[in-house]
Order: sequence, then structure tokens, then C-alpha cells
Amino acid sequence: MNHLDTIMEHNRSFVEEKKYEEFLTTKFPDKKMVVLTCMDTRLIDLLPRAMNLRNGDAKIIRNAGAIVTQPFGNIMRSILVALYELNAQEVFVVGHHECGMTGLNASKIIEKAKHQGVSDNTIETLMHAGIDLERWLTGFDNVTQGVMKSVQIIRNHPLLPAGTPVHGLIIHPETGKLDVLVNGYE
Amino acid sequence: MNHLDTIMEHNRSFVEEKKYEEFLTTKFPDKKMVVLTCMDTRLIDLLPRAMNLRNGDAKIIRNAGAIVTQPFGNIMRSILVALYELNAQEVFVVGHHECGMTGLNASKIIEKAKHQGVSDNTIETLMHAGIDLERWLTGFDNVTQGVMKSVQIIRNHPLLPAGTPVHGLIIHPETGKLDVLVNGYE
Repeated sequence: MNHLDTIMEHNRSFVEEKKYEEFLTTKFPDKKMVVLTCMDTRLIDLLPRAMNLRNGDAKIIRNAGAIVTQPFGNIMRSILVALYELNAQEVFVVGHHECGMTGLNASKIIEKAKHQGVSDNTIETLMHAGIDLERWLTGFDNVTQGVMKSVQIIRNHPLLPAGTPVHGLIIHPETGKLDVLVNGYE
Repeated sequence: MNHLDTIMEHNRSFVEEKKYEEFLTTKFPDKKMVVLTCMDTRLIDLLPRAMNLRNGDAKIIRNAGAIVTQPFGNIMRSILVALYELNAQEVFVVGHHECGMTGLNASKIIEKAKHQGVSDNTIETLMHAGIDLERWLTGFDNVTQGVMKSVQIIRNHPLLPAGTPVHGLIIHPETGKLDVLVNGYE
């Protein structure tokens, strides 16, 4: 059985057996927080449990590296929507040790893409179209730098509601231990 | 006690009591999947449970609306990193009913921003700097359209590994019921 069928089969019994009942809540985060963290698979359950966030407590944004790249990009928009439309009042950026975005190497990804059916011609066309793959496929040198940069972009954003605390933390992907880099109240 | 202190206090006992032990896993997703879904607070635990995804099973990307806006933006980069660097082989886009990005209204957000300390002058400066806030602060007319558009951007991406299935689903934010919009195997 393929993944989609397996998921749909599980889902039918999940709904039939009303397993959703323990998760019922509203769309407004009870703890009035928005968290930006990494898509890392080790953090799916570990991060909410390590931060004591249950269904309904917070908006959680996840991407590769917990990175805000552009002040007017997708992630910053999500943060502002959480703050203006969904009653969040604080921002937590939570990077993690051993992140795949540390030292991400664009050339290696492009090599892998070529091995998986992307033609030289396609890569060349993108470059000639002005798309800077080297720059786009870049992470950070270390997670501290990554978190600090994201916190700075958020904190200095022209549309951030005045007085919004922006915290920066690092989580250990095995133990869930948190360290505070930036205390947004100070 | 403020949120940050409350979280850190909880975290100390979480680590001390070794509550992380049940979550131990590696950074490679066991089910070789990457999921793009919404930051909605109702989905924090509901979505993983409704899709039977445990810590370690998948990369989960979350933003406002499960939207890929730009082919060379933050979210598409995260998807490609999952596919090329972290052994994911399938993509699931999971939108949801009653999403806050349905009919998002830029003018209303700008009004709220003004009420929360952002000056007229700042808004004017951004506009004069060529930043199209109306366009940036836009969601979708309905979630079906939103999911279809994201699936299309991913599926047609020049750097997608050949043959990668890209599925489109909608989840109900209360019951967790999934409906398939796009079966990526077909």
C-alpha cells in the first residue's frame, strides 16, 4: 500500500473513533504566541512538549532552519498574520543544534538535482534568468547566527506592532533542552 | 510570571525528568515525506495524529495557509532541502477549512498596524519603496484554490527531482478528516 492510501485508511478510523475530541479548540492561540522553528523531524512532537504547547496554545511556523530570509517574504507574512489577525502578541524564534541548514551547500544540491533528472540546460536557463541559486540555497554558518539574524529581521520589521517581544532560543534536538539567546522583554 | 520564564521552568523539568526519551529519533524522516501545512493552532497535534505522523516520521513545514508563494522563496527552498538533503521522496500539501488566509484583507491589516503604533509615514515609505503590501498581504479565495496553486508551483518547479509525487489534501480543523484533492501518483 502506498503512503497516501495508508494515511487515508488511518484517517478514516481516526475520525470514526472520534479521536479528534481531545484536540478540540479554537483558531486563536490560548497563549497568544507565535513560534517560528525548524521543520526538523525530531522536533514534531519534541518541541511542543519541551515548550509545553498543546493543541490550541500557539501558532507554530516551521521551515528549513527557522529562517526569515526576506522582510517581505512568506515567513514574515505568516508572523504578521498571527500578530494582527490571530491575537498572537509575542514571537519566539527557536533554532536547533545540528540543523541541516548549517553550512548548506548549493553546489552539492545542484549536483544531486542533476543526478535526479534536472538537466544542465534547466540549471543554465535559471542562471541566465537571473536566479541566484548559490545565494538562494544557502543556510547559515551556525545556528546562533541564524537565530540572531531572524530575530533582528522580525524585531526591526516596519510593520511589527509596537512593543512586541521577540525572543530567540535554541533547542537541543534530542533532549529538547532550551537555551535563551535573546530575551525579548529586555 | 512571563511566558518565557514559564516555558523555561517547564523545560528544566522536562529535561531533568528525561521526558524526551520517548521522542528520540534521527533527522531523516522514517516515512520519507515532507508535509506543507498551516500554522493554525488547531493543527499542532491534530494534524500529526490525523495523518499518523510521529516524531521522526516526516518533515513538517508550516506557514500561514500552507501557501507556496514564490518558486524561489523560503518555503520552496525548505521543500527542496527536505527532498535533496533529508531523504524525503514525496510532498503532501495539506490546507484546511476555515483558514485565516481565506479572503485575507490587506487594508484591514494595515489599519490594525496603524492602531498598533505603525505610522502613516512608514506605510507611505514602504509603498514608495516599491513594496506592494496589498499583493503581499493576500491569501486565497478558498482553500481548494490555495492548495491547487501550491501543488502546481511545486509540481512544475524546475528543480523538483523527477518523478516526485506531489499530493494535495484538505483537513478539517476540528475532526481531522482528510480529503484528497490531488493524488500525486496519478
